[in-house]
Amino acid sequence: MAMVLVLDFGGTKLTAGVVDTAVYHSGSLTWRAYKRVYSPAHGDARFDMEAMVALAHELLAGEKATAVGISFGGPVDVATGTVRLSHHVAGWENVPLPEIVASEFQTVVRIDNDANAAALGEWRFGAGRGVADLLYITVSTGVGGGWILGGRPFRGYNSMAGEIGHMVVDPAGPHCLCGKRGCVERLASGPYMAADWAETSGQQEGVTGQDVAIMAAQGNREARRILERGAWALGVGIGNAVNLMNPSQVILGGGVIKSGVHWWEVVRRTARETALPQAQVDIVPAALGDDAPLWGAVALVETT
Amino acid sequence: MAMVLVLDFGGTKLTAGVVDTAVYHSGSLTWRAYKRVYSPAHGDARFDMEAMVALAHELLAGEKATAVGISFGGPVDVATGTVRLSHHVAGWENVPLPEIVASEFQTVVRIDNDANAAALGEWRFGAGRGVADLLYITVSTGVGGGWILGGRPFRGYNSMAGEIGHMVVDPAGPHCLCGKRGCVERLASGPYMAADWAETSGQQEGVTGQDVAIMAAQGNREARRILERGAWALGVGIGNAVNLMNPSQVILGGGVIKSGVHWWEVVRRTARETALPQAQVDIVPAALGDDAPLWGAVALVETT
Repeated sequence: MAMVLVLDFGGTKLTAGVVDTAVYHSGSLTWRAYKRVYSPAHGDARFDMEAMVALAHELLAGEKATAVGISFGGPVDVATGTVRLSHHVAGWENVPLPEIVASEFQTVVRIDNDANAAALGEWRFGAGRGVADLLYITVSTGVGGGWILGGRPFRGYNSMAGEIGHMVVDPAGPHCLCGKRGCVERLASGPYMAADWAETSGQQEGVTGQDVAIMAAQGNREARRILERGAWALGVGIGNAVNLMNPSQVILGGGVIKSGVHWWEVVRRTARETALPQAQVDIVPAALGDDAPLWGAVALVETT
Repeated sequence: MAMVLVLDFGGTKLTAGVVDTAVYHSGSLTWRAYKRVYSPAHGDARFDMEAMVALAHELLAGEKATAVGISFGGPVDVATGTVRLSHHVAGWENVPLPEIVASEFQTVVRIDNDANAAALGEWRFGAGRGVADLLYITVSTGVGGGWILGGRPFRGYNSMAGEIGHMVVDPAGPHCLCGKRGCVERLASGPYMAADWAETSGQQEGVTGQDVAIMAAQGNREARRILERGAWALGVGIGNAVNLMNPSQVILGGGVIKSGVHWWEVVRRTARETALPQAQVDIVPAALGDDAPLWGAVALVETT
């Protein structure tokens, strides 16, 4: 029996799972073992690595993994198997993570970034089953994306495809940390919406993107304006992506998709208006939630 | 000896060519026969079809084509082999063009739209040889695009991929015929730049995109502003496309690319600033000029 170990290095949490391939071939998405721990506020790559290895050995309980799949929360050069960096955790610059993990567990290792892994997970096990061409977008702390094209993952020339978060949709919009103005991420991500609300309301601390969505639902006009602007930016980004690539499905994941019916209406309407009439698309919520990258890591091992 | 017939149905001109496959396998891009005629101002699909068939028989001079490749200037459903419509010539709605041509010439026929065909032509014979992932953009009467991804043409779910001309880059920009504001085509195409110049200058007739480029080079401030805005819009579109798909090369074709060194500088600088630093790209001129779609039609037959 094949036993696959999968690891998800998030910006703030580490998750590991073990799955019997016999089980997932039967169509049942169940973990043999599964555990999530949180990274300390000032951790680094070394801490994350040691904590993850301990977690994995705990889940394996002495058995041997036949393969390891890794989802990493940051840019990865898939061709060379190198983590480029993490935007959240120090010390990840140019780390050959698959090599280190292969040495630890003495087996084959595959890696991808979390958005690509989530796209693969949703395509193989979730909302995108049977779809040949899809774009997965996570709308969360940041906004990222991953492609399935022609029934397989598409990563681009040097594994940088899918960065819809830094598509400019409003060149006169607010400045983004990336150096440009009016990126999708700058307008649609949770922390940026929270920061914009805090700035206009004068309330400086502790507001989250979720709070903005709740205040908008309660009738707060400024919160509603910020939330609608985020949904509009995402909708323009989706419509532009549809004009460029003509996928038949766009899957949305991440915490911000829980912002309510009105948010979904604005995203869908704006995308429909931005895309050409002949290039329409289904925009649907992710089915696997926070575990999409982990299931994608399972699929990574399966397909390689 | 295999002899391929290729047909390019443009909006205002019809071009046909005949090529010996033995010749192009040798790397020499030479036509055995080649001819271009212009469509009348108020022609229709029936006229174009009859004129093209006559042209093809003239070039074949009694010999039989082993295959026919077609480039069509408008959206084509490649899966069903149906021309959707032409934006320039009446009567092309839902025409099964390959079927008609196959019946006329009694051989296998392949078709694609002109931007996809040009992308394929540049990839197989022109500026994109050896490149796995590229975007071809024609900047002309309209702005259209075609993809080569993973070393093969990518057309999307229903052959609508590549429509970079209707990517919105300035939501507060001028209205486009497509119903949106600030599309790449609305700002960067020749006729729209000419129309904008005519409107601001009060000169109403006979101005072309080429005139705007010449006036800009001669120091006319308004012409320069319009040309720079077009180059900026195209650059943002390219940068956004690079963030989404991470191609290693973007090839620019069409008459507007002859707008001078300054136009190229603005396009390249804006694209570089819009793309993430890790996803850089070479932006190069097309090598095959107006014949790119026709050479793409040769490649269409070759690869099918």
